[in-house]
Amino acid sequence: MINRQSERIRKLQEDVQEFVEKEMMPVESELLKIPFNEAAVVLQEKRSLAKSRGLFVPHLPGSYGGLGLSLLEFASISETLARTPFGHYVLNCQAPDIGNMELLIKHAPEAIKKAYLEPLMQGGIRSCFSMTEPSFAGSNPVSMATTAEFKGDKIIINGHKWFTTAADGASFAIVMAITDPDATAYQRASMVLVPTDTEGFHLKRNIPIMGETGEGYHSHAEIIYENCSVPAGNLIGARGSGFKLAQERLGPGRIHHCMRWVGICERAFDMMCHRAATRSLSDEEKLGHKQTIQNWIAESRVEIDASRMLVLAAAEKIDRFGSREAKNDISGIKFYVANVLMRVLDRALQTHGALGMTDDTLLSFWYRHERGARIYDGPDEVHKSALARSILKGYGLKPK
Amino acid sequence: MINRQSERIRKLQEDVQEFVEKEMMPVESELLKIPFNEAAVVLQEKRSLAKSRGLFVPHLPGSYGGLGLSLLEFASISETLARTPFGHYVLNCQAPDIGNMELLIKHAPEAIKKAYLEPLMQGGIRSCFSMTEPSFAGSNPVSMATTAEFKGDKIIINGHKWFTTAADGASFAIVMAITDPDATAYQRASMVLVPTDTEGFHLKRNIPIMGETGEGYHSHAEIIYENCSVPAGNLIGARGSGFKLAQERLGPGRIHHCMRWVGICERAFDMMCHRAATRSLSDEEKLGHKQTIQNWIAESRVEIDASRMLVLAAAEKIDRFGSREAKNDISGIKFYVANVLMRVLDRALQTHGALGMTDDTLLSFWYRHERGARIYDGPDEVHKSALARSILKGYGLKPK
Amino acid sequence: MINRQSERIRKLQEDVQEFVEKEMMPVESELLKIPFNEAAVVLQEKRSLAKSRGLFVPHLPGSYGGLGLSLLEFASISETLARTPFGHYVLNCQAPDIGNMELLIKHAPEAIKKAYLEPLMQGGIRSCFSMTEPSFAGSNPVSMATTAEFKGDKIIINGHKWFTTAADGASFAIVMAITDPDATAYQRASMVLVPTDTEGFHLKRNIPIMGETGEGYHSHAEIIYENCSVPAGNLIGARGSGFKLAQERLGPGRIHHCMRWVGICERAFDMMCHRAATRSLSDEEKLGHKQTIQNWIAESRVEIDASRMLVLAAAEKIDRFGSREAKNDISGIKFYVANVLMRVLDRALQTHGALGMTDDTLLSFWYRHERGARIYDGPDEVHKSALARSILKGYGLKPK
Amino acid sequence: MINRQSERIRKLQEDVQEFVEKEMMPVESELLKIPFNEAAVVLQEKRSLAKSRGLFVPHLPGSYGGLGLSLLEFASISETLARTPFGHYVLNCQAPDIGNMELLIKHAPEAIKKAYLEPLMQGGIRSCFSMTEPSFAGSNPVSMATTAEFKGDKIIINGHKWFTTAADGASFAIVMAITDPDATAYQRASMVLVPTDTEGFHLKRNIPIMGETGEGYHSHAEIIYENCSVPAGNLIGARGSGFKLAQERLGPGRIHHCMRWVGICERAFDMMCHRAATRSLSDEEKLGHKQTIQNWIAESRVEIDASRMLVLAAAEKIDRFGSREAKNDISGIKFYVANVLMRVLDRALQTHGALGMTDDTLLSFWYRHERGARIYDGPDEVHKSALARSILKGYGLKPK
Repeated sequence: MINRQSERIRKLQEDVQEFVEKEMMPVESELLKIPFNEAAVVLQEKRSLAKSRGLFVPHLPGSYGGLGLSLLEFASISETLARTPFGHYVLNCQAPDIGNMELLIKHAPEAIKKAYLEPLMQGGIRSCFSMTEPSFAGSNPVSMATTAEFKGDKIIINGHKWFTTAADGASFAIVMAITDPDATAYQRASMVLVPTDTEGFHLKRNIPIMGETGEGYHSHAEIIYENCSVPAGNLIGARGSGFKLAQERLGPGRIHHCMRWVGICERAFDMMCHRAATRSLSDEEKLGHKQTIQNWIAESRVEIDASRMLVLAAAEKIDRFGSREAKNDISGIKFYVANVLMRVLDRALQTHGALGMTDDTLLSFWYRHERGARIYDGPDEVHKSALARSILKGYGLKPK
Repeated sequence: MINRQSERIRKLQEDVQEFVEKEMMPVESELLKIPFNEAAVVLQEKRSLAKSRGLFVPHLPGSYGGLGLSLLEFASISETLARTPFGHYVLNCQAPDIGNMELLIKHAPEAIKKAYLEPLMQGGIRSCFSMTEPSFAGSNPVSMATTAEFKGDKIIINGHKWFTTAADGASFAIVMAITDPDATAYQRASMVLVPTDTEGFHLKRNIPIMGETGEGYHSHAEIIYENCSVPAGNLIGARGSGFKLAQERLGPGRIHHCMRWVGICERAFDMMCHRAATRSLSDEEKLGHKQTIQNWIAESRVEIDASRMLVLAAAEKIDRFGSREAKNDISGIKFYVANVLMRVLDRALQTHGALGMTDDTLLSFWYRHERGARIYDGPDEVHKSALARSILKGYGLKPK
Repeated sequence: MINRQSERIRKLQEDVQEFVEKEMMPVESELLKIPFNEAAVVLQEKRSLAKSRGLFVPHLPGSYGGLGLSLLEFASISETLARTPFGHYVLNCQAPDIGNMELLIKHAPEAIKKAYLEPLMQGGIRSCFSMTEPSFAGSNPVSMATTAEFKGDKIIINGHKWFTTAADGASFAIVMAITDPDATAYQRASMVLVPTDTEGFHLKRNIPIMGETGEGYHSHAEIIYENCSVPAGNLIGARGSGFKLAQERLGPGRIHHCMRWVGICERAFDMMCHRAATRSLSDEEKLGHKQTIQNWIAESRVEIDASRMLVLAAAEKIDRFGSREAKNDISGIKFYVANVLMRVLDRALQTHGALGMTDDTLLSFWYRHERGARIYDGPDEVHKSALARSILKGYGLKPK
Repeated sequence: MINRQSERIRKLQEDVQEFVEKEMMPVESELLKIPFNEAAVVLQEKRSLAKSRGLFVPHLPGSYGGLGLSLLEFASISETLARTPFGHYVLNCQAPDIGNMELLIKHAPEAIKKAYLEPLMQGGIRSCFSMTEPSFAGSNPVSMATTAEFKGDKIIINGHKWFTTAADGASFAIVMAITDPDATAYQRASMVLVPTDTEGFHLKRNIPIMGETGEGYHSHAEIIYENCSVPAGNLIGARGSGFKLAQERLGPGRIHHCMRWVGICERAFDMMCHRAATRSLSDEEKLGHKQTIQNWIAESRVEIDASRMLVLAAAEKIDRFGSREAKNDISGIKFYVANVLMRVLDRALQTHGALGMTDDTLLSFWYRHERGARIYDGPDEVHKSALARSILKGYGLKPK
């Protein structure tokens, strides 16, 4: 693949690569095994180091202390970071905080920026994003029951959310809720910032996912909002703009996910090749001499390359023309790359045999948790239909 | 599928089905969440109940207190039991104990039977089987480094094993070790019974598998055998017969696995259909109205039916002609059914969306742990090659 | 697979196998290359031989001169016949004539039986079945525009059909047409026998399929029915029973197709293995030593075995309980076996390399023409949905 | 996908697109149905038109009357041409002539250029390339038995070739033959130009491929070279350089194939979408409303986009660094794009139902003949192994 990056980005990527290899990879396994609160101590040190090297919050505009990267430029950095589980975290560009930062920069009142965005950008606090509800199909984003009622200078929130990632330990949530039930479907909801110490904010549980309850940053919460009262000034963006802001967030968000997946693929590919080249079957034969393993390596190589090209092309399109113009491309990469990720992880695991089932490698962690890639932010099925319907519209097909 | 079962087996299967549905399914989720030692108390009660209903140790010959089932007959019972995670356990026909019971019945000296087989059959103790070693590809069963040296009336065992399932809490291990290093490849190893309280038996760790360290019956241990000394009478079968006995064990063992997988498939299929029929996408549309979900249900239905037919046919062949005659059939079902299991679990999980990722259903448990089905007892790749080479031999192809 | 056949059927299958191998395989390639009218001469001799050996029209009841086989029994004979392209033809049990014979036996008036069924059973004439229309999706069997109007003692047929297999050279067509446009959807159509020399029967063309126009028995015609007038006595079955008779025909018809596909699979499998065992890659290495080829052979072996078991089980169910009871099983095998056929043919072709593309083997013939298996008699998509909807009905899902 | 083409290429591509749509598509079906010799008359007129518009021989250097395109630039033109079956032919940039022109430009003596290259570039004659032999696996390019013996000022050729594409009607063949049997494996062969009217050049037959014998340009010949004597000056390149020249030819040749496949994919995709948007299933429902069809459209869209990006990236790499540097990329696209082509054609065909089986659309033509894409110029299996071995070398794996 021809590298079209500027000299600056090339250098930045090298620095990030070095940080990942020297600082993170040696501790990554241990960090995954200990409770998050213990890991957080080490991670804080790594963050200080990242700051001192000028790598922190790379996604932010220069005026906010970041590196002012385009989405295309950030994509390559993101891939490199993804090769280690806490890569994004130590540069403070991890989901969901990265999305919340972007949202607050564009749409929060100054007072909110001062109070919440600044410490968030500094890495002093964490945040979460509360959208999905257990009673509604995530694939239909306008279906929700949570309400945010304006009463005087307050907003009162009631509802039931789940899969609010990283809520445990977060300082605030950005909550999607119905403010205008009588408006048209796409203009009913708004976003409201709710500090997690607000009365009525009940973190019911961290949902056990794939055998792990999780905690801290590595968790997905079920939350009850019971008459949570926050100042009216906590409204983010215009009233009724919740769906629009969510869409705005999701375009780049899917690029972030996809590039993270490409990075995971590259690491898993590297592990698979290393295993194939070194595991002996007999005195003369290594695993890598087996044609089936060779098939997996060859197919993975091409599929990962294809994934990267597709994602970078979509990122460039968003940079130039906006998320709306790139919506088909985004749908395409969302399901394509998620499925490449599944296949590559599966092949890498199988290549490791019994070892691949253990937590002695990173593969079992990814095998479990990245299965969600085909579900969150729109399952495969939804993106495929959306893409096809958009194409077929061009051939004159009307919705049924 | 035409049911060719005898009236007796049909009745037995109904009783087992009722036991599974009434006694086990209501508690299965809870049992998976608590530590095994706590679960064991409940499981012991269920075992008593199973005994009282005449369902206990169904696989054993009548003379040993069992139901005297053929492999074909046991296969159907096994499928039913597999619909709930502790099904086999409560009837005391769970791996690896079932294999050990069969081995001891056929090949153990009377004293050993008295001391170990009897309490094992009663459910008073558990056991494990120690074959795989970390330094050797499991696909090559004659490669191992563990030794069992005859010294006087003792056997001294030294070696390093892992993936010794359920060793934690077991009373004895049956260990595969080299007794005759100078014999031909297939006659070097023997099987020796080693009580786990023998000096030098070090359970180094329960290997963390897919995010869970496990404990008790639900665990896979790494074990160091360091000058473990046991009486010479602990030899199981003839000296040098280890490989032969392992082969003898693996034929029926693979039928057991495959029927267990068919049972898991049926349960996952049931969950998928239930979800599809009840989950609303909008007021008029359920998930099950989506053609993609219909495709998954249809494909799963046929693949599960095919799996059952193939496994039962292989079981009947073993019953009639022995494992050796059925070796191609066994290789075939081993990889075919394991892959059907992966597909069915994956589709069922995806049909559940985010819920499928959680431990609120059984799917995430199976998704993680049954991934091993494509690896243990010979990975797909080994069975495919073995089957093909056997076929090609009939066309005159000589080994390279 | 355990053979449960009676001694009689076992013997019959051996005789058929011998006939196929000794009489048909030596001439099959040549017969495919020459025009059908020339091949017909040789085929007529083979039919005489088949008659003399008591193998002719094996599917017919004893009272009609056949062997009185159950569907299950015929299925195994059918598989054997399918290993050579003209196998069914020489025993006069080829589609569409076999379906027409069964239809006429059950539903034709005596005069029609005398005039058309008798010479058809003798092999003196051929016939065709005219149902599909170019303007309607074949997947919706109640959509058609062809009409059959009763006028006095005549029936007047007008319409446009295509994919009327083997119409070229046939003596009569059985035509599906609307007789009662105001009846409910499933009671509008009837079946009418139309001699092909009727005025207004225009065989517009043999449709070029996969590069071959075809002729005679090997053809698929587009037909215009323009005021075709036939006696009212040519009505087959009751007026308005067309759809019901078509359904009745399709159940066993799909078993016939599926077993034919299993037979083709076995022949292609045999060719693949032979090629793998004999094709040299170098002095020491044959194609069959390659693991990828071994994978294909192993996967094909199991999938073909599964196909046979599924089809035989469905046939037995039809024999015992009728087509309606077996409708889910029939849908299941229709798409499953068709797709196994595609995969096996594709692997066999690839194993043959460039040779597989040529007409020097049978593979390219099957690769082209059997692609239709996923389309005719209901495409995959229709059968999958039908099966899934039937299953989901049991879970309470109502049609949308 | 961001278009990085120069203004000139963009304009050229538009002109070619217009030529394809206005001049070729209206006649393409008819041209496929008539004998090649008849089609040639029409094609000659189209070639004249292409010349008059400055589109002829676009791949040639400016000094040879072409457009002086880089491989990357030609790739996009090639995709556009591939949307119609005779697209490349009418611009005289069709295989195998395009490869022969490049070879002769670089390696032929002046006299040969004068006598053969000039009329070839003008479109006055056709040529062929004779490499594959029936007795040797095409996957092993150094295995061959054809010999070219230097005797005085003559070269005497003896051997048996097949799959010599377009030999029927060609004026000369470039033949790969052993000149130096005692040299190392990669230096034994040379290329020799043999006029097809040379005594001893026997075109034994056009090999029937997928039901069609073919003729003229659309044919693949089996050829016996029996003491064919040509002047020593007909040697192309240095003696012993045959393998090297073949490799040199194959890099760009594979780019040509892959871009042609991408073009076919786009046309088939267009047909599939058109069919989906217009085919009615009922009054309210079109085929394109079905989710399965939507899945196929979405998956095809992304896979085609990925294919194009991968091929263009490989082309650019060859342009910049040469074929050798791009060898892994070339292996990757060879199998990846060939398989995308199979899937897209298969989905498009299935979407057309019975119509897809007929020659009333282009799909059945491509379905049959493009199956070869997974075989010629190295089957999937060879390219996958080659790519994997090259990668694993970087991990220290030594050949077995």
